[in-house]
Amino acid sequence: MASAPEIPKKYKAAIYDKPGSVSTKIVELDMPEPGAGQVLINLTHSGVCHSDYGVMSNSWAGLPAPTAEGQVGGHEGIGKIVKLGSGCETSGVKVGDRVGIKWMAGVCDTCEACRAGVDASCFNGKISGYYTPGTFQQYVVSQANYVTPIPDGLDSAMAAPMLCAGVTVYSALRKSGAESGKWVVILGAGGGLGHLAVQFSARAIGHRVIGVDHSSKKDIVLESGAEHFIPIDGTDDMAEAVKALTDGLGAHAAQVSSLLPISLAAYCSVNLVMSAANAAYANTLDMLRFKGRVVCVGIPEGKPIPITSGTPQAFVFKSLSVVGSAVGDRREAIETLDFAARGVVKTHFRTEKMDKLTSVFEEMEAGKLKGRVVLDLSD
Amino acid sequence: MASAPEIPKKYKAAIYDKPGSVSTKIVELDMPEPGAGQVLINLTHSGVCHSDYGVMSNSWAGLPAPTAEGQVGGHEGIGKIVKLGSGCETSGVKVGDRVGIKWMAGVCDTCEACRAGVDASCFNGKISGYYTPGTFQQYVVSQANYVTPIPDGLDSAMAAPMLCAGVTVYSALRKSGAESGKWVVILGAGGGLGHLAVQFSARAIGHRVIGVDHSSKKDIVLESGAEHFIPIDGTDDMAEAVKALTDGLGAHAAQVSSLLPISLAAYCSVNLVMSAANAAYANTLDMLRFKGRVVCVGIPEGKPIPITSGTPQAFVFKSLSVVGSAVGDRREAIETLDFAARGVVKTHFRTEKMDKLTSVFEEMEAGKLKGRVVLDLSD
Amino acid sequence: MASAPEIPKKYKAAIYDKPGSVSTKIVELDMPEPGAGQVLINLTHSGVCHSDYGVMSNSWAGLPAPTAEGQVGGHEGIGKIVKLGSGCETSGVKVGDRVGIKWMAGVCDTCEACRAGVDASCFNGKISGYYTPGTFQQYVVSQANYVTPIPDGLDSAMAAPMLCAGVTVYSALRKSGAESGKWVVILGAGGGLGHLAVQFSARAIGHRVIGVDHSSKKDIVLESGAEHFIPIDGTDDMAEAVKALTDGLGAHAAQVSSLLPISLAAYCSVNLVMSAANAAYANTLDMLRFKGRVVCVGIPEGKPIPITSGTPQAFVFKSLSVVGSAVGDRREAIETLDFAARGVVKTHFRTEKMDKLTSVFEEMEAGKLKGRVVLDLSD
Amino acid sequence: MASAPEIPKKYKAAIYDKPGSVSTKIVELDMPEPGAGQVLINLTHSGVCHSDYGVMSNSWAGLPAPTAEGQVGGHEGIGKIVKLGSGCETSGVKVGDRVGIKWMAGVCDTCEACRAGVDASCFNGKISGYYTPGTFQQYVVSQANYVTPIPDGLDSAMAAPMLCAGVTVYSALRKSGAESGKWVVILGAGGGLGHLAVQFSARAIGHRVIGVDHSSKKDIVLESGAEHFIPIDGTDDMAEAVKALTDGLGAHAAQVSSLLPISLAAYCSVNLVMSAANAAYANTLDMLRFKGRVVCVGIPEGKPIPITSGTPQAFVFKSLSVVGSAVGDRREAIETLDFAARGVVKTHFRTEKMDKLTSVFEEMEAGKLKGRVVLDLSD
Repeated sequence: MASAPEIPKKYKAAIYDKPGSVSTKIVELDMPEPGAGQVLINLTHSGVCHSDYGVMSNSWAGLPAPTAEGQVGGHEGIGKIVKLGSGCETSGVKVGDRVGIKWMAGVCDTCEACRAGVDASCFNGKISGYYTPGTFQQYVVSQANYVTPIPDGLDSAMAAPMLCAGVTVYSALRKSGAESGKWVVILGAGGGLGHLAVQFSARAIGHRVIGVDHSSKKDIVLESGAEHFIPIDGTDDMAEAVKALTDGLGAHAAQVSSLLPISLAAYCSVNLVMSAANAAYANTLDMLRFKGRVVCVGIPEGKPIPITSGTPQAFVFKSLSVVGSAVGDRREAIETLDFAARGVVKTHFRTEKMDKLTSVFEEMEAGKLKGRVVLDLSD
Repeated sequence: MASAPEIPKKYKAAIYDKPGSVSTKIVELDMPEPGAGQVLINLTHSGVCHSDYGVMSNSWAGLPAPTAEGQVGGHEGIGKIVKLGSGCETSGVKVGDRVGIKWMAGVCDTCEACRAGVDASCFNGKISGYYTPGTFQQYVVSQANYVTPIPDGLDSAMAAPMLCAGVTVYSALRKSGAESGKWVVILGAGGGLGHLAVQFSARAIGHRVIGVDHSSKKDIVLESGAEHFIPIDGTDDMAEAVKALTDGLGAHAAQVSSLLPISLAAYCSVNLVMSAANAAYANTLDMLRFKGRVVCVGIPEGKPIPITSGTPQAFVFKSLSVVGSAVGDRREAIETLDFAARGVVKTHFRTEKMDKLTSVFEEMEAGKLKGRVVLDLSD
Repeated sequence: MASAPEIPKKYKAAIYDKPGSVSTKIVELDMPEPGAGQVLINLTHSGVCHSDYGVMSNSWAGLPAPTAEGQVGGHEGIGKIVKLGSGCETSGVKVGDRVGIKWMAGVCDTCEACRAGVDASCFNGKISGYYTPGTFQQYVVSQANYVTPIPDGLDSAMAAPMLCAGVTVYSALRKSGAESGKWVVILGAGGGLGHLAVQFSARAIGHRVIGVDHSSKKDIVLESGAEHFIPIDGTDDMAEAVKALTDGLGAHAAQVSSLLPISLAAYCSVNLVMSAANAAYANTLDMLRFKGRVVCVGIPEGKPIPITSGTPQAFVFKSLSVVGSAVGDRREAIETLDFAARGVVKTHFRTEKMDKLTSVFEEMEAGKLKGRVVLDLSD
Repeated sequence: MASAPEIPKKYKAAIYDKPGSVSTKIVELDMPEPGAGQVLINLTHSGVCHSDYGVMSNSWAGLPAPTAEGQVGGHEGIGKIVKLGSGCETSGVKVGDRVGIKWMAGVCDTCEACRAGVDASCFNGKISGYYTPGTFQQYVVSQANYVTPIPDGLDSAMAAPMLCAGVTVYSALRKSGAESGKWVVILGAGGGLGHLAVQFSARAIGHRVIGVDHSSKKDIVLESGAEHFIPIDGTDDMAEAVKALTDGLGAHAAQVSSLLPISLAAYCSVNLVMSAANAAYANTLDMLRFKGRVVCVGIPEGKPIPITSGTPQAFVFKSLSVVGSAVGDRREAIETLDFAARGVVKTHFRTEKMDKLTSVFEEMEAGKLKGRVVLDLSD
């Protein structure tokens, strides 16, 4: 076991000082003690995700109450365990282990969802950076048996976005049920989630990928591994365009992975909102062959618009299905990191210091963010 | 092998003499010859299904073109093989076998759907009583390797409705993915499909069934095996009512099995239309626990209205799914008949002679039909 | 919450005072304190299982080391929580809850098996009554998030055997992959596990069951819900006998559920040993139709003999499979109790006081035990 | 449609003139007429498979009777349809289509296996080159709805071995149930089936592959895409060697894909025989992690020896499984060809004229054949 590291009395954290507006503030906090079954982690990196923006600005419909003043946000954190609370002997972690905190920071391990191995739907799950202090800070207390082990050889900054964006698209792609060699359409393929979805689909699972996005995104979509690209600008009938590439039968699955206005390329979680610009997505069901499936990934923001079909009876005749997917289970998080550690998938990101967090959110709000940002949490 | 029966030169059939209106006419037709890979069947019984009404009256949106004048309808036929065409040696049937004709009268056995064992979605499937002469006649030619064997000990009149109504609900229930002991809500549980769905769900698969329908249907729903009944009249929040019966968690699956106006109780195929009276069904998704699934069964008629949820994010957070199901594969037809032969499920029906077909359709149109009608096709 | 019950300083336990021989002794022990994440349970009932006999007598090959002197055995315990340790706030249990302890008393919740929801294969699982003090005592400390909730309305004595025998056969039957309406052969159908397996198979899952055992067991097998009984005495070719009952095709699945000498009817866990008397079981694979599966349930004792087939190539041509199953996951334990609470399945048992434990084991050793024994742990 | 090609009256075929010995003879045969539901194919290429050797030499235990004198062998044929029999209108093929004949030349489409989409287990299936005239000839009659379409852009000689060797390993790998990113051990990885299995596993499905074979095979195994190679010569404990590469947990699946003497590298179908040299394979079960699966692929030849485990209880505790797999269904054949057409997998082969067939079998018998041989059937 690593020798016990020195733990300071105080440490830095970025808080939402004015929830409802774009504002964060660096403060000093007292060092917490890990309770029974908990560990104290010295965080070195945290991804910044569009869902953090939603929590900070109270613009996100998925949460039950306004965000508290002084909340520490963040849910893509990486660091090393520096202290164990009582009762952690059998939790499989030890001081010195590099671990991650993800969207779901902790689960109850006793509800029906946990028992079924579907911990992302835990009835008592705690969302990092909203229900509990998140990862925009140098130290965090977390649940010993739920932190995510980070594989050796995977850079911490590279690992951070895998803990939300990565596992979110990976889980959704697995829910598609499509085996390797089958056709998968990724809608919004050039976005922050989308380009990761293309990589996981084409390179980790071996799907044949058709990427759909604005024509300006063609290069990143093809570089990510898509076999074909269809621009939404200039394509009258998306379903016909997909069928023309797939023996006239349509794709086996489609992932609705970024239906926000396309400028929000760094958005972590996605939704079903159809903006005027995205009317081309409306007939997603018609893209599918028999037994095809649409996976709706991420947490809805704004007003959802139904997925429709030009021929209503196709839904039953073809036995199509639609399935929802939020963020992925811990098992999937580990698999996601494994693919990243092997170099199969890679995120585009830049690194910033903690005091740049507000300006990062401003870029996000303005739709100017390219790729993802990872905070370097060191002093 | 049975000795070859005597085959007359002419036989009786009921045709749609004025498609678009409620009218049938008994005519005499010349005996056809079975071609290569075909058999000639002497039909004794045919169920009358609401889909037949839709084909006759051209009121059904699911078909590509108006019904031809002189079309012989019907798709729930039972009879005995009386003659084999060439090339039937390896088809597994012989003269004297009792077999059935169902909604899908024949399939190509070569398309991707057939190869996958999903013959109900065959790209070249022929619908009985629309694409090919149906079962409202004393003789019919059909595909040797696709007729459905009828188990010994199952009465032909009892068997007929199993070939459409029975297999339709059975297939949909299997697609729910719900194991025995899990909660399933049947919407429209007292209807023609609904009461069969309750029986298959509770007795053949072992689900715990909550039946939902108008309060006047309570008795038939409970007699069919439902553990609970919820009346749509007088229930403000259907999702809450379901949760109150299921530990607060909701059902594992829901089958939307008769969303037509409830008076159409004998309707064979169902749809997603929400009539004003059925607003209680609108929040079907909210009835479900995590990983829950809604199965939409049958072929849509009228204008579909979206299935919605009071809390849009539940769809992704709970990882819910919605799947379409038409009529069931031949494998499922055989399983359906097996349950019927063992007495596990039973249809309510009355028998009529062929010349009463028009009046049966009139009853159907008026919404006065109780249970199903099976035609006795003998002279 | 129930008001805190009075907890004595001392309590009674039955220990293995001379492991390796049939001997137990009632002693007084000091009351333990529940640690972090633990609860203290006041046990009222414990089933006695043949695996306990194996642990006590060191005759069981499945354990890594001889049993320690002074070990408290037992792994089918029911009682009420009387005290919570620290860190149990989110564990979903409270003082007064009636809960159960099963074979696997606790798991790590972090290993790959636990993450996959397969906690019965936990890499760090603790077997009750061997690795930890078991349920032949009035109080026990256990893991708050792993105790099994007992449904209201299920008698504690009835519930106890469900925690090992019940869940063991239920899990194995689910692993068979056989849907309702499919044929399942239960080998050893009249034994302690076997008669429960028949009930779960026929009544909880809806299989069509063929029970196989010595002709003296015919009545209990048929009363338990089997559709057919085949005696091993007097049946020359078991595979042919099964095929004769199943359209010549064979069963969809077979469960090898009690291949010990038949006199050990109360045996909890079973094995693959073929005694001379059981040579009839040797051709189990030949009983199966294409895609058929044999489930080997329980923990092997003695020298295993291979499952064989008269026609070796059948294994590949028919794509048969063989799968092992130990004791079932906690999710399955809850489902098992749910079926018991609804009265779908019932165990035959008699109740004894704690001081009769040695004589119960003597009966077990002599092969004279009929049904199961449940200890009443009250003074 | 292509204009009708000229069809000669006579054509050349290679027959087994002395079944039981290694001998073939070129003869001239009369052109057959396709019957109802049949097509006539002008074959251009046929793979030569070790199973053909087994049929010719009567050394193969999998067949019910000695091979008939004059039998035309072969079951990996490619050619163009030149004539349709009656009743082929809806079979989806036309004159000029390039199609393949595989191990299973025709199926009944009506038995329970066919209905379930498991046509490789058809109760009435006809094996090419044994039950029916095979593909060592210039023309063959086959079942219109069962020939395998060959994708454009895939060379006929490349396609031939995919129809047996390719689909056999592909089907087995799918039956392993292992997702992309999971560890799969291929035993006999350098053999004729083995090197294809490694390619399909690593490149088509995305498994992490550990290849096991004699050290002389290291290069071909690694070139085929294996991540690790373990030599059977010089490895004392194969299970430990596998665990050392897989975090101490073992593989998710193992495919027993060539357990014949290793010199028979071109063997098409494989078996479970453990030769003395292959004792290292005996503890295959111990290589697996919980829920792991062994797939036994191909048709047994010689005396099978049981798959064993050093710790018998591991089979149940870890819930391991063993599944048999013969040759793959037609759906899988089409998927196999699709991967080959995309260049994902490639066979090593050389081309010979038809009159070299006897000498090819002699090479096979002597164990000198490297890679596979494809016959060029043109004059």
